[in-house]
Amino acid sequence: MVQLRPIGWVSSPRAEPMDDDWGGVTATVRLDGDWCTSDALRGLDEFSHVEVVYVFDRVDPAGVHTGARRPRGNPDWPEVGIFAQRAKSRPNRIGVSICRLVAVDGLTVTVRRLDAIDGTPVVDMKPYMTELAARGEVRQPAWSHQLMAGYWTPVPDERSPGSSAPAATP
Amino acid sequence: MVQLRPIGWVSSPRAEPMDDDWGGVTATVRLDGDWCTSDALRGLDEFSHVEVVYVFDRVDPAGVHTGARRPRGNPDWPEVGIFAQRAKSRPNRIGVSICRLVAVDGLTVTVRRLDAIDGTPVVDMKPYMTELAARGEVRQPAWSHQLMAGYWTPVPDERSPGSSAPAATP
Repeated sequence: MVQLRPIGWVSSPRAEPMDDDWGGVTATVRLDGDWCTSDALRGLDEFSHVEVVYVFDRVDPAGVHTGARRPRGNPDWPEVGIFAQRAKSRPNRIGVSICRLVAVDGLTVTVRRLDAIDGTPVVDMKPYMTELAARGEVRQPAWSHQLMAGYWTPVPDERSPGSSAPAATP
Repeated sequence: MVQLRPIGWVSSPRAEPMDDDWGGVTATVRLDGDWCTSDALRGLDEFSHVEVVYVFDRVDPAGVHTGARRPRGNPDWPEVGIFAQRAKSRPNRIGVSICRLVAVDGLTVTVRRLDAIDGTPVVDMKPYMTELAARGEVRQPAWSHQLMAGYWTPVPDERSPGSSAPAATP
């Protein structure tokens, strides 16, 4: 067994698990000052992106899948293995997201595109380097493109003024 | 605290930690059949790349950095925070690598560009999707490009025949 101690926690406007519409979300990771110092973040702001590793701690361990399942239970998509999808009900319940770095201030890192809900324990942060990107042609099945189609669309109340959101009154 | 159980282990020709020359390495991850079934890998072969999450278990927890250090101790590079570098001596000792998928066979996944040594415990595998790549321009400091310059060069005895490796006898 491997024991992890959170290095910090997510603060996010999203308090409940949601499948889609993560595009407009800005969140922060605040380091645990009892373990790490703000020195641990020195120089991070020279990177444009940061990889955040966290734990889907609201998933009941009894509900974790160790075989195959249909992503989101969608009957239009094939039954695929839990390691052939990124569902949160996975062994060890680990999430990894490449986020846009917005700011570093003391023990707090502000990011966009962190698809983890409020209170999520963070277990690592790493700077993103182009040398570690997927090399060569990327191939993935059609269902995965369909699943991701609505993932990053902005939520309506987070659209910027002047966007295409309908006015509240005609 | 968060408890992880390995989903499997790495088999690699590299038995000792090394900084560079990971380019020519082919490795496997073999799932723990007492926990996961081969169904957990169903459909993974439709993806070209897989993200592997593992633990640098040979790093002494007492040697973990929680502040800043010079990457590889190189005096030419700045002291940066442990979360502004990808050194293995980091809190929770977690590594994440995007690998090229070579084959899936039963409980065994063969990959290229997995920079983890033989026997490393793996705690998650996820399919790589383009929708989760770094979005927008990527920016990173010069030291990180210098550090990565030799990372993926092939090791001599793994070069393909006909490459520029010198012959053993003239």
